[in-house]
Amino acid sequence: MRVIKKISEAQVLAQRIREEGKTIGLVPTMGYLHEGHLSLIRQARKDCQQVFISIFVNPTQFGPAEDYKSYPRDFLRDKRLAEKEGVDIIFAPSPGEMYPAPFHTFVEVEKLSEPLCGRSRPGHFRGVATVVAKLFNIIRPHIAYFGQKDAQQAIIIKRMVHDLDMDVEIEVLPIVREKDGLALSSRNQHLNEAERRAAPILYKSLQEAERMIKLGERQSRNIIRRMEEMIKGENLAKIDYLAIVDGEALKERERVEGKVFIALAVRIGKTRLIDNLMLEI
Amino acid sequence: MRVIKKISEAQVLAQRIREEGKTIGLVPTMGYLHEGHLSLIRQARKDCQQVFISIFVNPTQFGPAEDYKSYPRDFLRDKRLAEKEGVDIIFAPSPGEMYPAPFHTFVEVEKLSEPLCGRSRPGHFRGVATVVAKLFNIIRPHIAYFGQKDAQQAIIIKRMVHDLDMDVEIEVLPIVREKDGLALSSRNQHLNEAERRAAPILYKSLQEAERMIKLGERQSRNIIRRMEEMIKGENLAKIDYLAIVDGEALKERERVEGKVFIALAVRIGKTRLIDNLMLEI
Repeated sequence: MRVIKKISEAQVLAQRIREEGKTIGLVPTMGYLHEGHLSLIRQARKDCQQVFISIFVNPTQFGPAEDYKSYPRDFLRDKRLAEKEGVDIIFAPSPGEMYPAPFHTFVEVEKLSEPLCGRSRPGHFRGVATVVAKLFNIIRPHIAYFGQKDAQQAIIIKRMVHDLDMDVEIEVLPIVREKDGLALSSRNQHLNEAERRAAPILYKSLQEAERMIKLGERQSRNIIRRMEEMIKGENLAKIDYLAIVDGEALKERERVEGKVFIALAVRIGKTRLIDNLMLEI
Repeated sequence: MRVIKKISEAQVLAQRIREEGKTIGLVPTMGYLHEGHLSLIRQARKDCQQVFISIFVNPTQFGPAEDYKSYPRDFLRDKRLAEKEGVDIIFAPSPGEMYPAPFHTFVEVEKLSEPLCGRSRPGHFRGVATVVAKLFNIIRPHIAYFGQKDAQQAIIIKRMVHDLDMDVEIEVLPIVREKDGLALSSRNQHLNEAERRAAPILYKSLQEAERMIKLGERQSRNIIRRMEEMIKGENLAKIDYLAIVDGEALKERERVEGKVFIALAVRIGKTRLIDNLMLEI
């Protein structure tokens, strides 16, 4: 396994691999790898002849008051895990390598970046789209892998790839959960014991929504009211947003029908967690 | 020579050419080809094994009150000229092919898009950067050719390529002029006889600026004042902007030193023309 820190070196290597006719899989990450990331790596390993992962905590997708500095980092641990999964190349650039001053260019996916996490985190998806565009241009993967946990991100990246005619296939893999239902996230690391016990409330509320829908409930506001009640019953939880939108344009839905996306962000103590459910009715 | 209208077809063909190890040159145009475009095509023909030109009047770079509809178009004439210059492939998509609804993604080059033409034409360079990013992703040229007449555009595209790590070399070739100094532009077509006689005032004022600088003048405001006088002496001319900025960050310069860029946009009747001079003092 090779670790590459320079853009030019990654670009030359990836191009050589392409010219040899080999397929390239890319798993873009911010490091602090967990089973969610590993499920993406394993799929890439199955599909592609060469597997790149990127490890880069991307400053442009964090707001000024957000957790860029405290985002968990452990490169040696990540390296060990990646090696074990058979990753071929880790691309781990510095912030100065990715954003040399002056840096002026951003990719903006309008409309889809506005609701949900986009409302709570202005500029977040602009940073995501920009860094992913850069990674795609550097590594030129045949397939890139993303987790369904960041469902809005995956929708935005698919849209960017489509709109800008990028020649890459986007694979989105299911959320990996702890036994009690908590979606895996590097940020779970920040939870203390009491917060960790409270955190499964996100998934429990989604399961309750699913149960109501299965029983025939179609009014979004009834489902949201019930989810709110449940989450508010948890002292350490504070709702950031809770929404039922359609699964493509991300517009709010009064009635639950067709491709429906139930998404929520909840603060557990100081840690903001997200989770979601995609349903086809 | 082939004419391709579908993105997917251009993408597949360009990829096959790359896989054969051949170099691809791209000349992006809005058609209505003139000697300026042909100078780019000739250079591409010298440098590259396969020459693509794109012909696409890009709606996203025109403001609502601008000349998108009346922009001159003559595909048969363009085809004849391209064939004569040895172009291999014309990529000529429809607006619906390039911007299928819903279309949400835009590339924004901040700061550099704000002054000069960016101020007069809000959103113009966002449209330019977006369409050029698309063309680069579709055709994946080794070298792309642009004219110095659209100097701000060339600076913005170089910046985009650098910031987003696009693997393409940008060549910028000198302005081609009529005998009386008028810079070639498809929009010259719109000038009536009297306007055509008035139009060389843009270049004359730039020549006067160059003369003053050669004689030792270093105060931008003195040079601009003199240029204004000259242009205002021409009844049919109306200044849109007139600026002396530095040749990289495009910031206004009080004193003429280093890499200096003198740029102007002037309306001759209803037709907005631009011209510029890049100087190294």
